[in-house]
Amino acid sequence: MTNISSIDGKKFRKALGSFATGVTVVTTRGTDGEDVGLTANSFNSVSLDPPMVLWSLDKKSSSLDAFTHSNHFAVHILSLEQEKVSNQFAKSDSDRFAGIEVERGVENVPLLSGCSARFECRTTYRYEGGDHVIFVGEVVSFESFDRAPLVFHSGKYGLLLKKADNEVIDSGWDFGDDFLGFQLRRAYFQLMAPLRVDIQRRGLSEIHRSILSILSMGDGRGRAELERLLELTGHRAANEHFQDLVAQGLITLQAGVEGGQVYFTAAGRQSALENMAMSKAAEEDAMQGLDANEVRLLKVLLGRVIRNTRSSLPDSLGKDKFWRENNVWGAPGTIQS
Amino acid sequence: MTNISSIDGKKFRKALGSFATGVTVVTTRGTDGEDVGLTANSFNSVSLDPPMVLWSLDKKSSSLDAFTHSNHFAVHILSLEQEKVSNQFAKSDSDRFAGIEVERGVENVPLLSGCSARFECRTTYRYEGGDHVIFVGEVVSFESFDRAPLVFHSGKYGLLLKKADNEVIDSGWDFGDDFLGFQLRRAYFQLMAPLRVDIQRRGLSEIHRSILSILSMGDGRGRAELERLLELTGHRAANEHFQDLVAQGLITLQAGVEGGQVYFTAAGRQSALENMAMSKAAEEDAMQGLDANEVRLLKVLLGRVIRNTRSSLPDSLGKDKFWRENNVWGAPGTIQS
Repeated sequence: MTNISSIDGKKFRKALGSFATGVTVVTTRGTDGEDVGLTANSFNSVSLDPPMVLWSLDKKSSSLDAFTHSNHFAVHILSLEQEKVSNQFAKSDSDRFAGIEVERGVENVPLLSGCSARFECRTTYRYEGGDHVIFVGEVVSFESFDRAPLVFHSGKYGLLLKKADNEVIDSGWDFGDDFLGFQLRRAYFQLMAPLRVDIQRRGLSEIHRSILSILSMGDGRGRAELERLLELTGHRAANEHFQDLVAQGLITLQAGVEGGQVYFTAAGRQSALENMAMSKAAEEDAMQGLDANEVRLLKVLLGRVIRNTRSSLPDSLGKDKFWRENNVWGAPGTIQS
Repeated sequence: MTNISSIDGKKFRKALGSFATGVTVVTTRGTDGEDVGLTANSFNSVSLDPPMVLWSLDKKSSSLDAFTHSNHFAVHILSLEQEKVSNQFAKSDSDRFAGIEVERGVENVPLLSGCSARFECRTTYRYEGGDHVIFVGEVVSFESFDRAPLVFHSGKYGLLLKKADNEVIDSGWDFGDDFLGFQLRRAYFQLMAPLRVDIQRRGLSEIHRSILSILSMGDGRGRAELERLLELTGHRAANEHFQDLVAQGLITLQAGVEGGQVYFTAAGRQSALENMAMSKAAEEDAMQGLDANEVRLLKVLLGRVIRNTRSSLPDSLGKDKFWRENNVWGAPGTIQS
């Protein structure tokens, strides 16, 4: 153990930071009728009957006076969407209420909206707590909203994933079923299964689908370019694949340099649109079991894997360009990196 | 706002639960020299100079006596791996220290290991807090460990993902670049890019690789079975693909029913092993940018997508059976569902 007298506060703060907390904004009405508020994560529940909560305020805080003289305060538990609100009320030199719409609670205490919960309190005790004052308030009224929480840990904001019942969280990492590549492949494969069935029903294969998908980002491409893009996904397009699509009335081939150009027919374009709509429907189905927060977490993490493995793409093609052009699910736009 | 006198405690507890917290176990030495401990999430920091922390204890708790008469207590901030410890110290009718190895701190207060941080405290104040007592302690020594935190929110444990600097967390969901299917495809594609390059260098395609991968889970399979498994991944294996592999000395074909059997040659088996090793290396590379907690989160979320989309697999083949057999990356074992 580190003896406290021999070390600086930095290490102590770091140790305290390993306790995760929500983030609150505590507000009151100042002696001159001004709105006062600050970001605090020292909030906690105290008592159920009577209902009481507490939080601590630095004795050096410019807001101490207002909270000491007011008999009421409000605590807002911030939601995931309120990171900006948290930052705004943590700044020392700004009008913290700038651009923020407030309602009025008991004794005109300002109330913020958009939070996960808020509590209006009557100050019951002010306790000595070293360089802080501990405010204990009896809750006179409260509201609760179903919003994902803003979480703070080790000096950073975080996203919270609630564990499902009986969900096993392994700390180990092995190359079993939860091998990352296997999971990615399986998730992708299952997600896209309905589309694959459709393709097969039409007598087409993965290669045919890839050709159509690349074309749906803009047709008139050269055969040589198409073949090069297909190779990157591990497909070797043979002449027969193009001929199959011609035979189905989906594309036309025009003679020219580098193997000529490939164009959609009207039927081909229609088919590509239907494929895109099916993709979207398949993804919406897959996400029904995930809540908005989980989808967000998954997107953030996949984004990191994508950035980490980005260097594996051949430079020659232009990495972003390749992905924009070879986006088989018709999702145009810029790739964030 | 809900007026507190008109509602029951359940709603109030729910509102309080929207404030995320870490989880602690607070311990002390009882008057008869017995070890006393309990799970609490009402912990928080109070003061930096002097260093002080606080937590609240129900006046009805059987541990109240011990904490009231002892002048010291220890707070352990639990790590993600200590969910069981949290549960054990939250039970009312068990020997909470059963199977738990303790060290001894100041005044023989029991100290647990495996936590993210622990604080030894001298009780400074015991404050009135409705149906709870607020214990404020001066920290006399502490230790901090680099372990992911156990987090509690809305009555459930959670996993925390720290936001990276400048990471944009969209609350909206659209079918742009962060379309789930696109992200899964891109992550998988990039992760596996080194293997694809290897396959292409050997003049083989995705279909060839799939044939070899399925065989690596056990060769001697019938041609008909292989073709059926390949179709599920969107591949139509033609006779030429098998002949290509024979020409490369990787497989042999034996005549028989349903198209005959396919076997590895010694060189083919060696090649499959090398492919598996390359897969593992590629995944390790991809995960270098993710910490253990992020990998864990990603695995949990992909697991949910996989379960959600499970129904898209054709029943006829046996869903688990298919995945065990068609596990192209050589990851045997049971699929958790």
